[in-house]
Amino acid sequence: MSLACGIDVGGTKIAGGVVDEDGTIVEELRVESPATDANAIEEAIAGLVTELRSRHEIVSVGVGAAGYVDKARAVVLFAPNVAWRNEDLKGELEKRCELPVVIENDANAAAWGEFAFGAGHDAEDLLLVTVGTGVGGGLVLDGEVYRGANGVGAEIGHMRVVPNGILCGCGKHGCFEQYASGSALVREARSLAMSGAMIAQGMLERAGGDLSKITGPLITDAAQHGDEGARQQLAELGRWLGEGIASLTEILDPGVVVIGGGVSEAEDLLLEPTRTAFAGQLVGRGFRPIPEIRKARLGNKAGLIGAADLSRR
Amino acid sequence: MSLACGIDVGGTKIAGGVVDEDGTIVEELRVESPATDANAIEEAIAGLVTELRSRHEIVSVGVGAAGYVDKARAVVLFAPNVAWRNEDLKGELEKRCELPVVIENDANAAAWGEFAFGAGHDAEDLLLVTVGTGVGGGLVLDGEVYRGANGVGAEIGHMRVVPNGILCGCGKHGCFEQYASGSALVREARSLAMSGAMIAQGMLERAGGDLSKITGPLITDAAQHGDEGARQQLAELGRWLGEGIASLTEILDPGVVVIGGGVSEAEDLLLEPTRTAFAGQLVGRGFRPIPEIRKARLGNKAGLIGAADLSRR
Amino acid sequence: MSLACGIDVGGTKIAGGVVDEDGTIVEELRVESPATDANAIEEAIAGLVTELRSRHEIVSVGVGAAGYVDKARAVVLFAPNVAWRNEDLKGELEKRCELPVVIENDANAAAWGEFAFGAGHDAEDLLLVTVGTGVGGGLVLDGEVYRGANGVGAEIGHMRVVPNGILCGCGKHGCFEQYASGSALVREARSLAMSGAMIAQGMLERAGGDLSKITGPLITDAAQHGDEGARQQLAELGRWLGEGIASLTEILDPGVVVIGGGVSEAEDLLLEPTRTAFAGQLVGRGFRPIPEIRKARLGNKAGLIGAADLSRR
Amino acid sequence: MSLACGIDVGGTKIAGGVVDEDGTIVEELRVESPATDANAIEEAIAGLVTELRSRHEIVSVGVGAAGYVDKARAVVLFAPNVAWRNEDLKGELEKRCELPVVIENDANAAAWGEFAFGAGHDAEDLLLVTVGTGVGGGLVLDGEVYRGANGVGAEIGHMRVVPNGILCGCGKHGCFEQYASGSALVREARSLAMSGAMIAQGMLERAGGDLSKITGPLITDAAQHGDEGARQQLAELGRWLGEGIASLTEILDPGVVVIGGGVSEAEDLLLEPTRTAFAGQLVGRGFRPIPEIRKARLGNKAGLIGAADLSRR
Repeated sequence: MSLACGIDVGGTKIAGGVVDEDGTIVEELRVESPATDANAIEEAIAGLVTELRSRHEIVSVGVGAAGYVDKARAVVLFAPNVAWRNEDLKGELEKRCELPVVIENDANAAAWGEFAFGAGHDAEDLLLVTVGTGVGGGLVLDGEVYRGANGVGAEIGHMRVVPNGILCGCGKHGCFEQYASGSALVREARSLAMSGAMIAQGMLERAGGDLSKITGPLITDAAQHGDEGARQQLAELGRWLGEGIASLTEILDPGVVVIGGGVSEAEDLLLEPTRTAFAGQLVGRGFRPIPEIRKARLGNKAGLIGAADLSRR
Repeated sequence: MSLACGIDVGGTKIAGGVVDEDGTIVEELRVESPATDANAIEEAIAGLVTELRSRHEIVSVGVGAAGYVDKARAVVLFAPNVAWRNEDLKGELEKRCELPVVIENDANAAAWGEFAFGAGHDAEDLLLVTVGTGVGGGLVLDGEVYRGANGVGAEIGHMRVVPNGILCGCGKHGCFEQYASGSALVREARSLAMSGAMIAQGMLERAGGDLSKITGPLITDAAQHGDEGARQQLAELGRWLGEGIASLTEILDPGVVVIGGGVSEAEDLLLEPTRTAFAGQLVGRGFRPIPEIRKARLGNKAGLIGAADLSRR
Repeated sequence: MSLACGIDVGGTKIAGGVVDEDGTIVEELRVESPATDANAIEEAIAGLVTELRSRHEIVSVGVGAAGYVDKARAVVLFAPNVAWRNEDLKGELEKRCELPVVIENDANAAAWGEFAFGAGHDAEDLLLVTVGTGVGGGLVLDGEVYRGANGVGAEIGHMRVVPNGILCGCGKHGCFEQYASGSALVREARSLAMSGAMIAQGMLERAGGDLSKITGPLITDAAQHGDEGARQQLAELGRWLGEGIASLTEILDPGVVVIGGGVSEAEDLLLEPTRTAFAGQLVGRGFRPIPEIRKARLGNKAGLIGAADLSRR
Repeated sequence: MSLACGIDVGGTKIAGGVVDEDGTIVEELRVESPATDANAIEEAIAGLVTELRSRHEIVSVGVGAAGYVDKARAVVLFAPNVAWRNEDLKGELEKRCELPVVIENDANAAAWGEFAFGAGHDAEDLLLVTVGTGVGGGLVLDGEVYRGANGVGAEIGHMRVVPNGILCGCGKHGCFEQYASGSALVREARSLAMSGAMIAQGMLERAGGDLSKITGPLITDAAQHGDEGARQQLAELGRWLGEGIASLTEILDPGVVVIGGGVSEAEDLLLEPTRTAFAGQLVGRGFRPIPEIRKARLGNKAGLIGAADLSRR
């Protein structure tokens, strides 16, 4: 059975894993990420590969990284968290590892992971929407990752949903991820708590009165224990999410939509409002197939698994 | 040289044309459209094909129709202007014409026409945005028409761009086509003229004081003759168009964007503001290839030519 | 006890009533309104006054009319439904009736009625928000009707709440009354029913399947009988209303806010969502007095009673 | 001739001035503000009064302070920059100074200053809109400062102009001051420059390449020297300002609107776009008096002069 190595380059950690043909992680290692030093990151990746290879017969390496990757799956055009600018990461790593390497956008890799082994295993296509710090996206269609003309598509988090809306880190106003991400969830919950609103008192108490301790997991946990304020916040997030997915469905026509990222742990507290808002905003209901909205299954391993699997195809 | 027949089913006319392998229309016929009677439309299409076939060696028929067409390019799921609901149009026409038939969404057909023979002839992919009564879209990628999971994608006119915005005929609020279509252009110009604003007096005079005579062609003509009010209206339309195309580019990553539809006749009076707004709203400028925005070349023949050509592939 | 005559000039009826110093209507008459003929309306008003005067000792006449009335309470600058343009209505009616006459904007008159005898009888000031076909407003402050510099203030229905929003009859986009009026309620409910949404089926059934029979009273009635779709529509209206009143409170700082107009008959099904949204949008909660939001008490008699009472002050 | 003392409590300085009946400042002093210590500020104010009084016959003291002041002009309910919460500032200062004291909201005081001695000296009423760090407002009507029911009105900067818009320091989204203040001007110009847009290069060069040196005065200066990017930024600010003033005019019906605050130094580069946008958004043009939009005249002395003058009335 063929084994591939998947690498997930995060902001603070680099994870490396050996993935079999069923998408199972046979072994996984993690190291700290020397985030700002491009060369050191490449060393660290090569180190992980070397160590894993000492114990497993690895045929190829797939790297998932946040940022723009070119269509040849070789060059990182731009990475927001690492000093890669037009970096031939494939070339550098193949020199160091002496194995075939492919570079993938992390959300694309995760979409493939969910498609091949997770929530979309029974589907022919899938739009993955990751709801975490930002909103990421990846599309698998007719059994292939959608790459657009230049490899930089599916950046759904920067679709503008509110003209003159909230200022985004990208410099634009009103990007989708300012309304439908975990950061948006936390920002709104803290703002509500700061205003002294009664409905936010439950969350504030759980945070020991410290606004900065109101986090995504805390809100989800509160909601799961019945806190009405936390439930409202998740429902509001779900509304934005569903309305945005409706626009994406008009454009992309996916067969299945999978919601991943940390906030998806809130399960139906997030997904039910998402589905309701989605259904209410989709044109042509009754005359078109309506994509199902599902929760992702592979959690934060989707990118690593997907990158590994893509590398051996 | 292989000849194909292209059919364009419009709201008031049905056009049929014989198209050669260079995309040239060898002969074209038009008949009135019996719009509300599905059977009569099929008869009319078959009549056009029969007549054209009496003079040309035709190998296949491609039909472009507004509405949802299934992925097999056979069944019209829903057409806004014709009484087709889950209509096996391919089957009906093949019975009548005894030729291979494919059915295409009209904007997809037009996108293919521009890709194969028009503004995108030198490109590997293309997003067509038609600015007419509504806003339509078609995407060609890696030499194929993008069909999504169900054949109903690229309905870019119903991407929501303003929450709680202008009510659309589809029942949603704030759809892109309420801001970036020819209908939007006319609505805003009339509203301005009705308010008595000085800047609209030029347009109103050209219309002989009759608001209902302020039309897209009149506005374009006024702008081309230097009318400042008309230029502002086109620039405002271009702003919405460019901002919407920026969102579409984040999602679809097209290599070239082609603007078609009646309003594109305004040329750079529309396209320059579109380009400026587009550039100002695109994330990652400087680190990603930026798609060029071009005017369509085939005018209202794009759909007929594209449908014909798609039928023989 | 001094009696005054109040006149309410509506779109289809003209009502005249004799009002005592307690705000009680001693006698009331109604005639059809010859709406488009300014002279005929003045005749009709004079006729009502003459008849009422034949049975009561009337000291003055107050007329409430939709439109702009000058600060001297004499000249109708503009009326949307009647052909009055810079009409010296006070002069015309005093000639005909030989009694002192004052002209008031209808919402101002209603605000005074509620202030003097209705929901604000115990308050020193009051902002009336009427939720009917449109959204009207009237402000009483320090025991006086707020008249602004020119008599045309408190047109709160045309505060813009959504840039590029729904087109208003006034020619602007996104006016408050496009979101918070009874017309908005009906428009949204019909749009939902037309889309085939399950949640709207209850309303549609009550309307016998006829969209045009979904009206404000039907929605209110359905909501009062527990229809979830109708309740949601009223809650959504309440949300817009409350958020708009928050903006108005930042600007006007009223002591009490009274909600009138036909939709206010929905009572707490409208007012509770209004209060919640209002509280959530008001700056400086905890450090400022928060105005109470109450239902109006005088129903559609508020304007007639208020106009009469203002005429004798 | 009666002399009054005016005090302007700013974030970093406290200014005290002796003002005669013509609004002329006879003498002015400034001290550092011990901003966070309420008691120390009161000491500092008393010190200024004592010193000025040693050289002038002062009859009363007027204090202008940012924040909510009660209707009796005595108690500071809340001040954003000073630790006053329900502080009887009038009582404290009268004890210390042994002179009659009134407390005014700073924008109200400035509105009165402009009304009595500045841009509104020939008007019967006036709405002052200050465009500085935030957007403040003050209304003078029928020769009186508008105080609302509780003294906390005219907080026009927190009228919501964009639902789900930019997050405001107050905790709400989409407040007017997030679009029409000097802070908004600077935020947008920096964001544009950061994006690498050519149009912002002129401003960036003037700032020596340092984004943080792009300030309101720099933008104004660049615009006055013909920089197109700076002019566009001021025009965009003017558009928001004019559209917001249109909403305010529907509600308040002012006779004259005066634009003050630091950004008003841009003169017609700001005011012309403001006037154009205002005219385009006002309902009922042609049938109602249209308020004139003027620049303020007293600069940053308006509050001090106004507070002094109000104290002797």
